[in-house]
Amino acid sequence: MQLTRYTDYALRVLIRLAITPDTRVTVRELAQEYGISQHHLVKVAHHLAKLDYILSTKGRNGGLELARKPEDINLGTLVRDTERSLQLVNCVDEKDGSQCAILDSCRLPDILQAAVDAMLAELDRHSLADLIHDAGDLRRSLKIAFQAAD
Amino acid sequence: MQLTRYTDYALRVLIRLAITPDTRVTVRELAQEYGISQHHLVKVAHHLAKLDYILSTKGRNGGLELARKPEDINLGTLVRDTERSLQLVNCVDEKDGSQCAILDSCRLPDILQAAVDAMLAELDRHSLADLIHDAGDLRRSLKIAFQAAD
Repeated sequence: MQLTRYTDYALRVLIRLAITPDTRVTVRELAQEYGISQHHLVKVAHHLAKLDYILSTKGRNGGLELARKPEDINLGTLVRDTERSLQLVNCVDEKDGSQCAILDSCRLPDILQAAVDAMLAELDRHSLADLIHDAGDLRRSLKIAFQAAD
Repeated sequence: MQLTRYTDYALRVLIRLAITPDTRVTVRELAQEYGISQHHLVKVAHHLAKLDYILSTKGRNGGLELARKPEDINLGTLVRDTERSLQLVNCVDEKDGSQCAILDSCRLPDILQAAVDAMLAELDRHSLADLIHDAGDLRRSLKIAFQAAD
């Protein structure tokens, strides 16, 4: 059981942008710092911009930056926004539409939904701000030179 | 975010066996009733037998049956037993062992672990017995003829 790589990368992008406030970062820089695929990051960044998590500015001094304060980016909401499915099992096959034979009388979906809700409720308690308490350490891990504004 | 097909099928096997107590069911019958791959079910059944969830008897009247009462099969424990990973993100790549660049200073793993724990705590509240309250309906869905012992 895992979150998609999509959500994983979305979290990495948001953490990265949060630790250098008021600074634009290109997708290329982001990919290099994390050592991950620029190709995948482009899609993630596009989606995060569409959802108003980040601003994307084109041009010579363009790049990505947070569109909201870290404390206003809730982790539960983010996961709901980036995960394609939050159903723990596929009662209906996504490809051919076939249904599990016991779908109509099965009590499992309700129990699994309650489990997912409990998970999301725990994530709802946290914001992006909780992930960057050690912003200095995070910048050092990513080898980022940064002078915070006073 | 989904459970593996492995866990999905394990749940289907256990539900199936629970609704016809004291009856052996072959993997072939199980696969036919659900309309799913016998090949995958063989592996799942083998694993469930190894973990003492079910008994597997060979021979002419052989087949699978529950090794414990449905109320003694906890859903949280089952998911812990059948899911390969309960880490919501891969901080370390499974294939090449490479680590996320911010692994040492990232607070996300602890928060995600708390979310998984909340999910499992919810599943811990339920047993297989909770899934078969409508045993008659489930048998009808699977087109199983069954005469319960008095």
